[in-house]
Amino acid sequence: MKTLTIDLGARSYPIHIGTGLLARADLFTPHLGGEQVMVVTNEVVAPLYLETLLTTLGLPAEAGLILPDGERHKTLETVNRIFDALLERRFSRNATLIALGGGVIGDIAGFAAACYQRGIDFIQVPTTLLAQVDSSVGGKTGVNHSLGKNMIGAFHQPQAVVADIATLDTLPAREFKAGLAEVIKYGLIRDAAFFAWLEAHIDDLLRRDPEALIQAVERSCRNKAAVVAADEREGGLRAILNFGHTFGHAIEAGMGYGQYLHGEAVAIGMCQAADLSARLGLLPEGEVRRIESLLLRAGLPTTPPAAMDAGAFLRHMAVDKKNRDGRIRLILLEAIGRATLPRSVPRSQLEASLNEYGRSGA
Amino acid sequence: MKTLTIDLGARSYPIHIGTGLLARADLFTPHLGGEQVMVVTNEVVAPLYLETLLTTLGLPAEAGLILPDGERHKTLETVNRIFDALLERRFSRNATLIALGGGVIGDIAGFAAACYQRGIDFIQVPTTLLAQVDSSVGGKTGVNHSLGKNMIGAFHQPQAVVADIATLDTLPAREFKAGLAEVIKYGLIRDAAFFAWLEAHIDDLLRRDPEALIQAVERSCRNKAAVVAADEREGGLRAILNFGHTFGHAIEAGMGYGQYLHGEAVAIGMCQAADLSARLGLLPEGEVRRIESLLLRAGLPTTPPAAMDAGAFLRHMAVDKKNRDGRIRLILLEAIGRATLPRSVPRSQLEASLNEYGRSGA
Repeated sequence: MKTLTIDLGARSYPIHIGTGLLARADLFTPHLGGEQVMVVTNEVVAPLYLETLLTTLGLPAEAGLILPDGERHKTLETVNRIFDALLERRFSRNATLIALGGGVIGDIAGFAAACYQRGIDFIQVPTTLLAQVDSSVGGKTGVNHSLGKNMIGAFHQPQAVVADIATLDTLPAREFKAGLAEVIKYGLIRDAAFFAWLEAHIDDLLRRDPEALIQAVERSCRNKAAVVAADEREGGLRAILNFGHTFGHAIEAGMGYGQYLHGEAVAIGMCQAADLSARLGLLPEGEVRRIESLLLRAGLPTTPPAAMDAGAFLRHMAVDKKNRDGRIRLILLEAIGRATLPRSVPRSQLEASLNEYGRSGA
Repeated sequence: MKTLTIDLGARSYPIHIGTGLLARADLFTPHLGGEQVMVVTNEVVAPLYLETLLTTLGLPAEAGLILPDGERHKTLETVNRIFDALLERRFSRNATLIALGGGVIGDIAGFAAACYQRGIDFIQVPTTLLAQVDSSVGGKTGVNHSLGKNMIGAFHQPQAVVADIATLDTLPAREFKAGLAEVIKYGLIRDAAFFAWLEAHIDDLLRRDPEALIQAVERSCRNKAAVVAADEREGGLRAILNFGHTFGHAIEAGMGYGQYLHGEAVAIGMCQAADLSARLGLLPEGEVRRIESLLLRAGLPTTPPAAMDAGAFLRHMAVDKKNRDGRIRLILLEAIGRATLPRSVPRSQLEASLNEYGRSGA
């Protein structure tokens, strides 16, 4: 097991990464504020891991709250179901929520923990690769609105993160690959050596070798933590974590949530951002091909959906959170391993990239 | 005009208190982060003050969002209406919400500001006495749940508070008196000299003398600010602000929200807490009578509803946020002007007070 400490002063917390951690009561008990504990999970994860975790914690079956699965349930209504359950059980401000599942469960349960009685403790137990590398660090929680993704939320740090690599064994291949997109992102934005390591070990990761996975998750979390520690509330540097995401969110919204997995949309978005970087003279054209190549080897899509033209992208990018007063600002690459801060991009260049990159006519 | 600065480091903000401040653009413009500004108000306040404020800020009528009036609308659904409006207008993370109204509007709009895109700026423009003295300081925002009051919320500090005393002219007498309950509370918990000043000036306040009101609002805010500055996130000292509130919330919930105004319920709760303090030997019996006397002169109720017996109180107090793991902890008085930190109260003494204080048979 590897343990990484996220240094946030009084709100510092550990991330434990290893195999078989759901059986390790000692990783949980130091962080439980009282006897009131609720494990929030979903109907897919519950049959696989809920009983194990409840047994480890000595909790009865009623301590589990099983939500429906899927991004389309990442709504205020679902958060309200958690509030209902907490209040029906008369849970106090000293209660602890444990989020057992992927990013959706972590986001929903974390937001419920942020708002219940203005904030209770929670522990993240991410069971997908995406959640292990992305949701474990940064304290972002929240839900979608019909008019935009992640539009409602809060910053709320967990007491601990327990990333059990063994839970990835049951992850469907498509979801696993989508998680790799975020892993690759960390190489792209600030860790050229990690990107090279990924080029060398992508096949180990695809056959889910535990040692390679622990290494990849730890290095991703370490990169994210370094960024977040410097900029906890997303004023500046932290924006680089959104590399590829403005395009990616447009794809998710434009195609309807669920058509593309988040990581798939981000993989395409990173290629679009890399292409735009090359058009602006920031990134050598050959590096765009190198990025595409690794993403393709990881089994990820790299070209925008045919059903979305440039206009569709622009419409959806206009309500993205990363914009100031309607101007389009994007994170670009100066090299593999070096992202820029958000910068205003000439609309003409953006449109050219949207029209040409990955289009069959190009 | 008096200006008080709430010292919270990077999140410090001014509270301006005076007459005619809705016309003072200079008090608002330094705090507007961009051109996207929405004024959230309700159907009672809108006809009185919305146009004035929009004119001051040079905003069109569409910049106002008019919600239904009343505590029963302090729900997640109403917050969602604000999210709808913000997203329909494509408001970015740099938008500013202005809450124009009483405590309910401040709580709802503040919570919406806390959660929209994980936090946007907001300005409080409280138009009731209760909101001017209580909601202006502390950063508490939130909504009710059918199973408990203020159970869902966030801490979110405003950029500024503009308390225009002139808006109190249109406040119904009953609401005005309810606001006085919280003013009196500040005297009780930490400012004996202010309590004595209130005994001398209660008639000036009741005829809404502007100078007396400015003095009372400022002194109340100053007392609250001193407490909050020492304990921003309600770990310890800040709990004294809830003096009388555990009983008060039980009355509001037990009688159905809206039967008693918050301040009325708190007035009764403060008497019950004072009675309990006397029973426990902390407070001389004569001081309980002095407290009752000032509250009665302010036109406030001092005895619990006949329809709620001790059992009803205990049931509603059990889900109150101020409890740790189900034990009943209450703030008591050691003197007029000196509250205790929350302490576990013997259930027998609490029941005796609930059964006997203010009951016709006693």
